[in-house]
Amino acid sequence: MTLPSKVRIFEVGARDGLQNEKQMVPADIKVELIERLVDAGITAIETGSFVSPKWVPQMADTTDVMAKLSRQENVTYAVLTPNMKGYEGAIAAKADEIEIFSAASEAFNQKNINCTIAESLERFEPVTEAAKAAGIPYRASISCALGCPFEGDVAVDVVADVSKKLYDMGAYEVSIADTIGVGTPIRTKKVIEAVANVIPLEVIGVHFHDTYGQALANYLAALEMGISRFDSSVAGLGGCPYAPGATGNVATEDVVYMLDGMGVESGIDLKKLVKTAWFISNFLGRPPVSSVARALKNKLN
Amino acid sequence: MTLPSKVRIFEVGARDGLQNEKQMVPADIKVELIERLVDAGITAIETGSFVSPKWVPQMADTTDVMAKLSRQENVTYAVLTPNMKGYEGAIAAKADEIEIFSAASEAFNQKNINCTIAESLERFEPVTEAAKAAGIPYRASISCALGCPFEGDVAVDVVADVSKKLYDMGAYEVSIADTIGVGTPIRTKKVIEAVANVIPLEVIGVHFHDTYGQALANYLAALEMGISRFDSSVAGLGGCPYAPGATGNVATEDVVYMLDGMGVESGIDLKKLVKTAWFISNFLGRPPVSSVARALKNKLN
Repeated sequence: MTLPSKVRIFEVGARDGLQNEKQMVPADIKVELIERLVDAGITAIETGSFVSPKWVPQMADTTDVMAKLSRQENVTYAVLTPNMKGYEGAIAAKADEIEIFSAASEAFNQKNINCTIAESLERFEPVTEAAKAAGIPYRASISCALGCPFEGDVAVDVVADVSKKLYDMGAYEVSIADTIGVGTPIRTKKVIEAVANVIPLEVIGVHFHDTYGQALANYLAALEMGISRFDSSVAGLGGCPYAPGATGNVATEDVVYMLDGMGVESGIDLKKLVKTAWFISNFLGRPPVSSVARALKNKLN
Repeated sequence: MTLPSKVRIFEVGARDGLQNEKQMVPADIKVELIERLVDAGITAIETGSFVSPKWVPQMADTTDVMAKLSRQENVTYAVLTPNMKGYEGAIAAKADEIEIFSAASEAFNQKNINCTIAESLERFEPVTEAAKAAGIPYRASISCALGCPFEGDVAVDVVADVSKKLYDMGAYEVSIADTIGVGTPIRTKKVIEAVANVIPLEVIGVHFHDTYGQALANYLAALEMGISRFDSSVAGLGGCPYAPGATGNVATEDVVYMLDGMGVESGIDLKKLVKTAWFISNFLGRPPVSSVARALKNKLN
């Protein structure tokens, strides 16, 4: 089994995670969470989003969070920006990079942002043009790439087509997201294969959910394909909006444990990461959605 | 990725699972659990053990459970038998097959059964001889095959050596157990490779725990090696005696979901299995330790 020797983990807990938690988390706690994650070795982190506070009140304080952070040189602080207004917020907050997203499902796009896939890509054009002009890198994420809550199966060709368009618009990374966690390893390999036929393998990232417990098996399948860009969420923050009570984002701790065991370098200190998982979980008043964090709870010293 | 087209799942929830639950479960509930599992398509099931009720009170009613079961022709009802007294109990209860076990760690064997690995194998000889004479098949399990709570790392050569001895004693299956769930996929492949050097690949089984969330990734690694004998526990029954609050046995539902997604046949009906997971979990008063069971809770009709 030849795997990449090194991977980049993009930590999504502070945005994708906390956005889907019921509880509101104050800016100071978010700042402490992000700074602890950076201290544990995270070098790419989603810190918030600039979207309407009417729709996503959990992220209304992103400007405040960005201003309060003690930022480190080697760390990328990314924010989600769905439109020009969001882009302007990101620039004002001095974000290092921005993220845009589309879905590989027409039905999901309609229900989620009320437009077709093609229209959603058009809407991002002013944002990507502005980012290019300003020299701000951006990454793109494709939701529902392994299945859709409304459509069910999603054709790998559609995922490949959307990937190509986002890559051609200038994204330095295109992240294939299994938004509802239904993917299994063979399907994962087929999607990656289809996408790798149209964009370079080294820009493909993966974002898997643990709703059906498949995330690590899918990451293993992706590693076996040569993928080295992984999204995950400390403590498994997030939950699954499509299955209340179920898991969403895979926990970063569980991913790092697997990588450590296989000698694949992530640069992350597992003990510090697990302490951070317990820090935010204690604030939320529940144990982390992470097997590793629970197993290591009493073994941290 | 060429995988076996078909696997056998050996369901351990009613014994290995319930033995490690704090709550005592009445014989009638165990009978209903086992019959529901069989109705879901399980064809090999651990129904109990014949060990001292002083040490394992949860299994004191195995004779009663075996007597009450409506047994199906095509199903193997197995029991754990550590010694001749246990073997006699198994015969009296008309068990279809028996199980013996050793550890791949001297320290674990000493703490667990107060003898060396070699001595433990000697002690099983009268049992295996009697079973052979009576035509009762037996399978063997090797605990701590990927790590030991006392010794830490366990050499793959020791696992291979113990496997060979148990196979030579007549076991039709030798199950490699990651008792504390510390294994990751590359290690899993190395252990299987070492064992497959000394006994036929088709008699090797695997028994993985989800303590660090690695079980499905490890099963995928084992499938990629051609392994087709898997242990798992409905609802993830069992917990981890070495890390209180942590997960032990991987949930059968999560394994079956992965197999279904990859077109690997297990003969198990996932919905019936998930209903069974909720049946026993409701009795125990907590949700199943299974991502699939939680995600499908409201999608069963």
